Amino acid sequence: MEVKSFIGLDEAIRKGIKHKPKLTTKSVSVLDAVGKYSASDILSASDYPAFDRSAVDGYAVRSDETISSSKTNPSTFIIVGTVYPSTSEVLKVGKGEAIKLMTGSKIPKGADSVVMLEDAKANGETLGVFVPVRKFQNVSRRGEDIKSGFRIIGKGKRVTPPHVAALLECGITKINVVSVSIGILSTGDELVSGDVKNSTQPMLQSFLRGKGFEVSLYGVARDDEDEIERALKKVREDIVIVTGGTGPGEKDVMPSVIERNGKIEFRGVRIRPGRTTSFGIFGGKPIFLVSGLPVAALISTENLIIRLISKWFGLADLEKEYRTGILARSVVNTLGFKSFVRVKVVEDRNGRRIYPTRVTGSGVIYSMIDADGILVLDENSEGIEEGSTVSYEVLRW
Amino acid sequence: MEVKSFIGLDEAIRKGIKHKPKLTTKSVSVLDAVGKYSASDILSASDYPAFDRSAVDGYAVRSDETISSSKTNPSTFIIVGTVYPSTSEVLKVGKGEAIKLMTGSKIPKGADSVVMLEDAKANGETLGVFVPVRKFQNVSRRGEDIKSGFRIIGKGKRVTPPHVAALLECGITKINVVSVSIGILSTGDELVSGDVKNSTQPMLQSFLRGKGFEVSLYGVARDDEDEIERALKKVREDIVIVTGGTGPGEKDVMPSVIERNGKIEFRGVRIRPGRTTSFGIFGGKPIFLVSGLPVAALISTENLIIRLISKWFGLADLEKEYRTGILARSVVNTLGFKSFVRVKVVEDRNGRRIYPTRVTGSGVIYSMIDADGILVLDENSEGIEEGSTVSYEVLRW
Repeated sequence: MEVKSFIGLDEAIRKGIKHKPKLTTKSVSVLDAVGKYSASDILSASDYPAFDRSAVDGYAVRSDETISSSKTNPSTFIIVGTVYPSTSEVLKVGKGEAIKLMTGSKIPKGADSVVMLEDAKANGETLGVFVPVRKFQNVSRRGEDIKSGFRIIGKGKRVTPPHVAALLECGITKINVVSVSIGILSTGDELVSGDVKNSTQPMLQSFLRGKGFEVSLYGVARDDEDEIERALKKVREDIVIVTGGTGPGEKDVMPSVIERNGKIEFRGVRIRPGRTTSFGIFGGKPIFLVSGLPVAALISTENLIIRLISKWFGLADLEKEYRTGILARSVVNTLGFKSFVRVKVVEDRNGRRIYPTRVTGSGVIYSMIDADGILVLDENSEGIEEGSTVSYEVLRW
Repeated sequence: MEVKSFIGLDEAIRKGIKHKPKLTTKSVSVLDAVGKYSASDILSASDYPAFDRSAVDGYAVRSDETISSSKTNPSTFIIVGTVYPSTSEVLKVGKGEAIKLMTGSKIPKGADSVVMLEDAKANGETLGVFVPVRKFQNVSRRGEDIKSGFRIIGKGKRVTPPHVAALLECGITKINVVSVSIGILSTGDELVSGDVKNSTQPMLQSFLRGKGFEVSLYGVARDDEDEIERALKKVREDIVIVTGGTGPGEKDVMPSVIERNGKIEFRGVRIRPGRTTSFGIFGGKPIFLVSGLPVAALISTENLIIRLISKWFGLADLEKEYRTGILARSVVNTLGFKSFVRVKVVEDRNGRRIYPTRVTGSGVIYSMIDADGILVLDENSEGIEEGSTVSYEVLRW
């Protein structure tokens, strides 16, 4: 593994895109779909609301009969009935008549507006109305929220709680979601012996689950070609991640295991941390090799693996969010590498100041815990001077 | 339920704070803790790394012996051994000696720095080093990441994937988290009959689960005091939410059910949508009454319920995030009400323009699906003019 042969992150993405795994979709309940990605555009088959309904508790009237209403000179109506949301019979409001109704009730025939309870006073069957109402005031019109044919959710969009409400209102209880399944194997004699703790595997699991992916763990294999090969052949998921075993050292047996079962596409990416990140095909599946050290593993997972998954399956909402601020301390870059610098952000009246924590150090977990964002230095950057305005990625888990 | 008796949101929060439910904590595995809130400060009991270790694959040397190294005039060393992360024996580097080692390996005695593989060339047992290294270069110092006594996570902070790595590295596999448990009951004859779909209950469930809370559903009860009372008495969770049955209409039987089993603290909050939001105590537990309409329910859940839960239990990271932009269309407020206006945000070279969708309309789900943020108009605001700079809450699910 020669640094000279390392490729840039953009080239790594371009090489990876060609190896799109098969797209698996799954039909799940709308509730279980939250946090996952819709496999198709979903259109409403009906209007919502399905009928004109009251947006408030009040009295359904003809608006033109309220024009001159005021507190001192109320218009008067005869109350001819009461309607609840559960009333299926459609009543009728005639001239000079009003019908009491609760929020969500069907608007009676003849009425075109609703006077709020607090803007009227009933005295037996007589109603005094204190304010004029406009046509359709306090009425939710049929289809005003979701018209038949409206796209409730787009293909590849992440399902959120409001989607749950909209889908269920439209009578849709199950949807197809993109099922991104990932198997993670860790390698390293030092993990098997327990000399080093395997914190990277569970960290990646929780991180990738948070993105709505299904993640299974395949434990730890020794730095032994046959043992790793046997473990990798057990992976049932569509995408494979191996932690550890990516370095240029002689014990790194991963490349030959992959070559025996597929192909290495690239070894090493010019990013820091995470420069040993590699990619290939194993038994027809994309396989990513990431560092065994947590921060390096996280940086390459976020910037290579998740970006590729997003591109392969057209998943929206995985884009990063950027903000700008003033760099409070200069940072230096290793020319030729894209560096991911963790930053703390301090905001006050004078704006947003960005404090870099550590440029390198792939094991430095606390810098990740405490970081508010990531400042990316490009391959051709020598660094950024204190006082410069910079744009950083907001960290969100 | 008189509008005159409605209270402001801040007063609602003040009244609610007094009714803090008992704090329940639970010991869970670090992995299951992700997305939940730590019940206490957790300090590291040991240094991480536990020893000086190599940050790269390379050769451990004495840095002062590399000072004059260059490509044309390499310093030479004798390679006296190889160390892996799984090697427990601590080797020793003498004058003019080097030891090959892999990332994560213990630094041998005598050595104080590591030359990267690519900056050196071995020829049998002889090593040529092409660059000088500084003291501790490419060495992760003992405790440099997490020192013994370092606070890995603060009380009330939400557990993220990097916390998983840090906790496990420090040998912590289980932690106590705050267990916020919520039972949701829906009420309404129209839901029981099926005339109206109950989309609000599952929407709130997914929304509150996304905040790391445990949510159980108690189905739908008719607008009947005894039926509602029986259903509420079954709730085992610490906090109760009832959807529907909050309006001023005559069928709203909730208040008397609550008075029979506790106390109503307030009925009606001056927010739009969500003005019928109410709060009390039922059987010693806080009980929230929210609208049966999805958007109103979501607004009051986010702005009253979640804020109170956060204050009761000291949960951090539930704060909202604000951004500023230019209002692209004027909005009008109903004086005396705090309005939550859904906005679409368009960003380009000219900055961020904020398009309000609908001021009111508590059923207008699509406005919530498509919204990027919420613009809050205060009780004493008559509205905001087009062209004004405004600050809005970023919507995130």
